[in-house]
Amino acid sequence: VSSALGRVLVVGTGLVGTSVGLALRDRGVEVRLADLDPQALAVAAGLGAGVPARPGDEPASLAVVAVPPAVTGQVAVDLLTSGRARFVTDVASVKTAPAAVVAQAGAETAARYVGGHPMAGREVAGPRGARSDLFEGRPWVLCPSGSDPAAVDQATTLAILVGAMPLVMSPADHDAAVALVSHTPHVMSALVAARLVGAPDHEVRLAGPGIGDVTRIAAGDPALWTEILTANAAAVRDLLVRVRSDLDAAVAALDDAALGSTEALTDLLRVGVAGRGRLPGKHGAGHEDFVAVPVRLEDRPGQLARLFADIDAAGVNVEDLHIDHVPGRAVGVVAVSVRPEAEAPLLAALQARGWRVDD
Amino acid sequence: VSSALGRVLVVGTGLVGTSVGLALRDRGVEVRLADLDPQALAVAAGLGAGVPARPGDEPASLAVVAVPPAVTGQVAVDLLTSGRARFVTDVASVKTAPAAVVAQAGAETAARYVGGHPMAGREVAGPRGARSDLFEGRPWVLCPSGSDPAAVDQATTLAILVGAMPLVMSPADHDAAVALVSHTPHVMSALVAARLVGAPDHEVRLAGPGIGDVTRIAAGDPALWTEILTANAAAVRDLLVRVRSDLDAAVAALDDAALGSTEALTDLLRVGVAGRGRLPGKHGAGHEDFVAVPVRLEDRPGQLARLFADIDAAGVNVEDLHIDHVPGRAVGVVAVSVRPEAEAPLLAALQARGWRVDD
Repeated sequence: VSSALGRVLVVGTGLVGTSVGLALRDRGVEVRLADLDPQALAVAAGLGAGVPARPGDEPASLAVVAVPPAVTGQVAVDLLTSGRARFVTDVASVKTAPAAVVAQAGAETAARYVGGHPMAGREVAGPRGARSDLFEGRPWVLCPSGSDPAAVDQATTLAILVGAMPLVMSPADHDAAVALVSHTPHVMSALVAARLVGAPDHEVRLAGPGIGDVTRIAAGDPALWTEILTANAAAVRDLLVRVRSDLDAAVAALDDAALGSTEALTDLLRVGVAGRGRLPGKHGAGHEDFVAVPVRLEDRPGQLARLFADIDAAGVNVEDLHIDHVPGRAVGVVAVSVRPEAEAPLLAALQARGWRVDD
Repeated sequence: VSSALGRVLVVGTGLVGTSVGLALRDRGVEVRLADLDPQALAVAAGLGAGVPARPGDEPASLAVVAVPPAVTGQVAVDLLTSGRARFVTDVASVKTAPAAVVAQAGAETAARYVGGHPMAGREVAGPRGARSDLFEGRPWVLCPSGSDPAAVDQATTLAILVGAMPLVMSPADHDAAVALVSHTPHVMSALVAARLVGAPDHEVRLAGPGIGDVTRIAAGDPALWTEILTANAAAVRDLLVRVRSDLDAAVAALDDAALGSTEALTDLLRVGVAGRGRLPGKHGAGHEDFVAVPVRLEDRPGQLARLFADIDAAGVNVEDLHIDHVPGRAVGVVAVSVRPEAEAPLLAALQARGWRVDD
């Protein structure tokens, strides 16, 4: 029963770990919680994210490591080798570094691990900020690297159950992507916010929603962000060096503009508009505009992993996913929601690859 | 009847001009509209922002210039010298440049002008994006510079009537402040957005709310922002050069962190948290938590200008303002809302300065 999610052990009951627990409990999954900090553990349990793990517990079918990035790999290895969990995934914001630590434990151990990263968060830390809908509609990156298909199935089921959209990529691709869309913007946000320190009150008083938005993520925990940026330092550095060269160009463009030649400045602003335009829009279309294609899974390992590879190969954008979860039983049907125009191509592609599509 | 707002002429029916018209109409003020683009004018009039101005119109008591910053000064001078308006204010995002243009028309003309800048906007342009509540609770900077107190009264009344909070400062202070809280953040937002151009799809797909917030203002109109940045080039340049030096430090801090020494990186992130913390919070307290102090104005010029100077000198934070507006009649009472603990100091300060406070 590869796709079944049995008991889940969440290690680390901060914002993300507790949110995973809350979301899984909403779907009827049995959740055990662990944290070095008994107070955080008690808060998470009190919120209904699961019950504290005990020494005599049976092994979990999946452990979710939600501890600071610097110790994620080691905690994953400990769980895999101690027998506390059959499969292990994590939620760290970097994926190359933890994968390297797990790989050092040997291929057999590493096969039961698949790195993960839900693209969701808040500027508040700790279990009290947790929300069961934190992952709703958000990408959840999975980075298999020598992973057993059954491990990928477990992590995929987890992601879908909490409302997220699983996306598979390599650890290196993931780390380059988050350097672009998360880590470098964080540094830039901090640089804008830094200018406010020491500014006169009458200047700060004029601040409006614009600078409020630009600096929102700069409020993130400096200790956590130091770990994240350090673990992804090379990729972030590369982007910051490019930003620096654009910044030099911006200063030169301002000088030109002051002398009457504004073309370079306008071009630079136009590039910004174009870049901003590439961001995925808000979920404009309601769920009612999507067509759900139900795909029947066979009861053997690797079905979910294979399904997502096949959907990806078909070039179809998945808008929403749903699986009916009966605790302890294999997932039978995955509802894959797509835009109406993508329904026929998806059906054809999946049938050609041997999937049973109940249309 | 210095504080009375008679007929207002709004010149330029874009986002801000049309929003001014809508907000004034809500308060019963008579509004005439003008725009070089007959279509924009028709849209604004159709939305209820006022009626199109006609050649035979009587002079307006106040004209609000809401045209692109580069032509604001000249349009203001034209209105002042043609006799179409007794007093003129504007809404341009820079204040030194238009004030200089108006000053060239002579002291007598310049005395009937007071520069203004509502700290409110949206990323959409044109009258269709206008909202009557655009200025609600937002600062509205006034920059008197050789201005007649009666002109300041008119602009102050305008700001209060549309729901904004008038703040008086010099044109130079204003331009330094907006370089910090608006113009430099705009350039930084564009630099982050620019990195997305040419990035692979699978990277952009991971973008979440964080980079969405950082790049939101980068969507602003490049032509308008070229004008704004050009008119304030020196102040923005100065800040960008400081940001560049912080960016160099960030790259060095990343290098140090990769080698195991993370102190500099954490310090840099902590400065960001501190800067972010200086921003005014959301209006946490509801209006019901404020105490309204009604101040009676005498019917002579400069009363509102003097009142705001006295409130400022008392060091009291104004949370909200309200004036009862009867078209064509002088403003009689201004309700100054403050936090409960500020009520007694405000009453004492105003009474000491000869104001009639109806407590």
